[in-house]
Amino acid sequence: MTISDKEAGEIAELRAARSETRRACVPALEEILYEPVRLLDHGFLRVIDYMGDDGAVVQAARVSYGRGTRRVSEDRGLINYLMRHRHTTPFEMCEIKFHVKLPIFVARQWIRHRTANVNEYSARYSILDKEFYIPAPDQLAAQSAANRQGRGEILEGAEAERVLELLRRDSEQAYADYAWMLNEGEGEAKAAADPERKGLARELARMNLSLNFYTQWYWKTNLHNLLHFVSLRADPHAQYEIRVYADAMLDILSRWVPLTHAAFMEYRMGGAQLSASALAVVRRMLAGERVSREESGISPREWRELMTVLGRESA
Amino acid sequence: MTISDKEAGEIAELRAARSETRRACVPALEEILYEPVRLLDHGFLRVIDYMGDDGAVVQAARVSYGRGTRRVSEDRGLINYLMRHRHTTPFEMCEIKFHVKLPIFVARQWIRHRTANVNEYSARYSILDKEFYIPAPDQLAAQSAANRQGRGEILEGAEAERVLELLRRDSEQAYADYAWMLNEGEGEAKAAADPERKGLARELARMNLSLNFYTQWYWKTNLHNLLHFVSLRADPHAQYEIRVYADAMLDILSRWVPLTHAAFMEYRMGGAQLSASALAVVRRMLAGERVSREESGISPREWRELMTVLGRESA
Amino acid sequence: MTISDKEAGEIAELRAARSETRRACVPALEEILYEPVRLLDHGFLRVIDYMGDDGAVVQAARVSYGRGTRRVSEDRGLINYLMRHRHTTPFEMCEIKFHVKLPIFVARQWIRHRTANVNEYSARYSILDKEFYIPAPDQLAAQSAANRQGRGEILEGAEAERVLELLRRDSEQAYADYAWMLNEGEGEAKAAADPERKGLARELARMNLSLNFYTQWYWKTNLHNLLHFVSLRADPHAQYEIRVYADAMLDILSRWVPLTHAAFMEYRMGGAQLSASALAVVRRMLAGERVSREESGISPREWRELMTVLGRESA
Amino acid sequence: MTISDKEAGEIAELRAARSETRRACVPALEEILYEPVRLLDHGFLRVIDYMGDDGAVVQAARVSYGRGTRRVSEDRGLINYLMRHRHTTPFEMCEIKFHVKLPIFVARQWIRHRTANVNEYSARYSILDKEFYIPAPDQLAAQSAANRQGRGEILEGAEAERVLELLRRDSEQAYADYAWMLNEGEGEAKAAADPERKGLARELARMNLSLNFYTQWYWKTNLHNLLHFVSLRADPHAQYEIRVYADAMLDILSRWVPLTHAAFMEYRMGGAQLSASALAVVRRMLAGERVSREESGISPREWRELMTVLGRESA
Repeated sequence: MTISDKEAGEIAELRAARSETRRACVPALEEILYEPVRLLDHGFLRVIDYMGDDGAVVQAARVSYGRGTRRVSEDRGLINYLMRHRHTTPFEMCEIKFHVKLPIFVARQWIRHRTANVNEYSARYSILDKEFYIPAPDQLAAQSAANRQGRGEILEGAEAERVLELLRRDSEQAYADYAWMLNEGEGEAKAAADPERKGLARELARMNLSLNFYTQWYWKTNLHNLLHFVSLRADPHAQYEIRVYADAMLDILSRWVPLTHAAFMEYRMGGAQLSASALAVVRRMLAGERVSREESGISPREWRELMTVLGRESA
Repeated sequence: MTISDKEAGEIAELRAARSETRRACVPALEEILYEPVRLLDHGFLRVIDYMGDDGAVVQAARVSYGRGTRRVSEDRGLINYLMRHRHTTPFEMCEIKFHVKLPIFVARQWIRHRTANVNEYSARYSILDKEFYIPAPDQLAAQSAANRQGRGEILEGAEAERVLELLRRDSEQAYADYAWMLNEGEGEAKAAADPERKGLARELARMNLSLNFYTQWYWKTNLHNLLHFVSLRADPHAQYEIRVYADAMLDILSRWVPLTHAAFMEYRMGGAQLSASALAVVRRMLAGERVSREESGISPREWRELMTVLGRESA
Repeated sequence: MTISDKEAGEIAELRAARSETRRACVPALEEILYEPVRLLDHGFLRVIDYMGDDGAVVQAARVSYGRGTRRVSEDRGLINYLMRHRHTTPFEMCEIKFHVKLPIFVARQWIRHRTANVNEYSARYSILDKEFYIPAPDQLAAQSAANRQGRGEILEGAEAERVLELLRRDSEQAYADYAWMLNEGEGEAKAAADPERKGLARELARMNLSLNFYTQWYWKTNLHNLLHFVSLRADPHAQYEIRVYADAMLDILSRWVPLTHAAFMEYRMGGAQLSASALAVVRRMLAGERVSREESGISPREWRELMTVLGRESA
Repeated sequence: MTISDKEAGEIAELRAARSETRRACVPALEEILYEPVRLLDHGFLRVIDYMGDDGAVVQAARVSYGRGTRRVSEDRGLINYLMRHRHTTPFEMCEIKFHVKLPIFVARQWIRHRTANVNEYSARYSILDKEFYIPAPDQLAAQSAANRQGRGEILEGAEAERVLELLRRDSEQAYADYAWMLNEGEGEAKAAADPERKGLARELARMNLSLNFYTQWYWKTNLHNLLHFVSLRADPHAQYEIRVYADAMLDILSRWVPLTHAAFMEYRMGGAQLSASALAVVRRMLAGERVSREESGISPREWRELMTVLGRESA
């Protein structure tokens, strides 16, 4: 029920239509345009529109009259240069618009990125569907002991079962009471409505729903801000439930702007930021010195992370 | 339990301290600094810090070396001029920081204003308190028939009772199960924890809470953006539960920047925007013509609103 | 020399190409895509890319799976409603990118609108062309006596001639010395370079150019912010040299998003904002009262403006 | 003439006044409040107001009811943690406001940072003073051969002299003609005005001034955005004329928020970002391998930079 037949039909209709344009086009992205990438149990991410391509980055960097691109190797070199030196404005010249369906608690993390345009489905005007997120068993993790905001071992046995049962039961109850309070709707809800009751205002009734209910929005951002979002949310420290969306964006980036995507993986995602002290340690090590954590002035936790980054045993 | 004794003590301590400063000060605002204005059943709004005053607006508009202010009548005239002509940048030179406690569904509306700085209490790291919003009986309204996003008549009798009962029961249940899943905490929660169970990660358990639970944040914005927020959220069309916060901000504005507050009431809140067609109607009426809606080209709904604005019967 | 043959060729090449797309297209805008609208003596504005159309506003407002549009009258009604109630987020779902050539003093006003993405031609890297703005004789205005930031009567005779002569002479001199200091370049400049001299760094030499020299940039913004820009810069109080750009944008808007453009003209550009006091005056007048300025509490200047807005003699 | 006696008097008056406040105060910053730090030949930077301190960062990160600070070592640890993991929102809770006098070409670079509030002295309303920037002889550099946007050797002898002469002469001429066209002003200018002439509008006359003339503005930003500005503009690749302002900000930061300043130097300014390929090279080197540039897949330029960062000869 994530996407109804009616909705699937509307998407198919959009996908079937073609127009002629003078604008820059990206066939690999057109291929999946409007098509939902399914995520979590009822969520999705789909590209609704886009503006520009790798060439548009190059064109803006050169303030060109024409297409602005040259040989691929030159364009790649320029894009690498811009990424490496954090010349961010040319990446702001591309724009993308998504339709996203996501649990409310994920939406609350997501919206902290303020540099985007958003239109959310309004539960003041409309009635939310009965769709809530229940984690898959392999995502039912305990609190991490090492990290106040992380996950530890996976719950098992009776505890796992009980947790899933409670989540499901409370969500069902919350929705049933939401529907009763509204006393309106279509189909079944309409049939169940009691003409003797007034029904509670939608803007009030919604407060009974829990944070695992799904909401949806149109979310539009430029390429620079999208990369920033992905760099934070596709990070291993990000919560799993938002990371799956960021990972899907990485795939979309590789279709849409392959040169930018490659530069991003090389200079952001795959690289590392060393602190002044860490850099001093690396220099000394490369000069053949043995360096101990104690004399480095680096905290135990940062030292462990540094040794991991450098591919060394943390002895 | 909205504010614990420990918290009240911390606030009192902050209020007791005094420092000497060369910065512009506003005694009427200092008077209530840190002090919570209580709103709804468990919420509050309190001013944590501020920068600038009416004089700072004037000073920036004049790009002054000194205080920049002149006679009050001149400063008032300048502030009125800036407000009237939407010269907004001088109002951006004042800043204010609030600590706000508010239901999550209100927080979700609020955060749509992106031009502010926010630090929210994180339920990924920490455990939320058992505090949820239950509307007062006189706010338990039915869906408006006239307006898809408004409230109509107040619910009464058995229906009202049942709604309050459901809201309370589901919130209690949601919190009890949240606590059980966490299997950790302080005081009572600690005592109740089962050492045989791992407990669910906080970032997951929180999804069981409903949207009427309270969250809190530090929220900082400049005077221009605050006025924009207030103009939208102190409007009669805004949802009651956010409007009470905007109304409290209006009081704070009258203490902090009385000249700006007066200009805001005169040119924004108390005024009206007429469309091109509405303006044509007003001109014709003032010239003594009788104008009917039909020939005005204005829709019935806009016509009704226009007649209300003009203080005329809508016949 | 505003657009060289080489540049005109690049534009023609871009215009000749066609691709097939699944995205929303606007034929009336495609028609003029890439084509420069010439402004002032050497400036231009040209649309480089766009995302969305009137339908995209409607689609976002409805958070649709499909196109989201219905009958034109319904879409028009919704767009009017959004514009009238300042529901701005759906208008943020459309984006447009311009290539603009403009005098530096105009660029300095323009850039005060911060909610856009900009890539400017860099005089740190590159050498500016010898192109400067000289006002047409009918724009050579005296300082307004009534308005500190406006223009008054047109200069005539010897004074006008002398002003034009000075502007031209100083610009020529500034550029000649800029070129001499650089001691590099292509074509003529290269031939004139003295191999014995080092030449001044570009980032320094540029400081000798005056504010009437032309710069150029890529400027991208969303539809909501574009409307805000136009509402301020197509206003009669805006400086003529930026107003011509805003006027050209109005034409482009009518091609791109005709329903939004019409709503904008009706509710923003053609309307009027009345203050609380002004509204009180209008109500009394409509009730048949004679109202004098003195008792209205309105300042002489605002009173004059109000009478003009209401189409009445200001007696 | 950079700061007139009248202006110096106004500053002294501001500095002499004291108020009592409940807000967080920073004595080391109060000490220099309002006092101009002189930069370049006529420029300055002065702190006009501030909000918050290191404690405000900590307080927001903890969403505290009270001061929120603990032992200095704990607060330092938290600030380091926030800086290292790019948790930027708590740094947005501090705000600072500067009054800056700077050459127009520097202002044009500066304003590209859009996340600040700005009020610039308007040459549409007012008449600019005769103050322009002439580089000191040791800053009169040739174009860099290695770097398209950098400076190379210092000009000497006749070429240097001639450049200074041209810059001065053209600026003098530009101002004299600006004044003649205006035909108005105070003091000397008033005496020189010809009552027979109308004088050109200020908004037009200003276009004759060159980019080395000084402008001034109030510029307000939050601590996070200030650090971003400084990281880009105190960088050795930044143009000298803006770098002096960023360097002055670094001093101010060390007074205002010493813990944040130290974390910033450790994790941003003094550290290094390694790309994925560079990190692979470092790992192999630390494992005792000899790595050649050719097999590393890194470009010659990046390789040179990497060897410099690692403190190794680039052989």
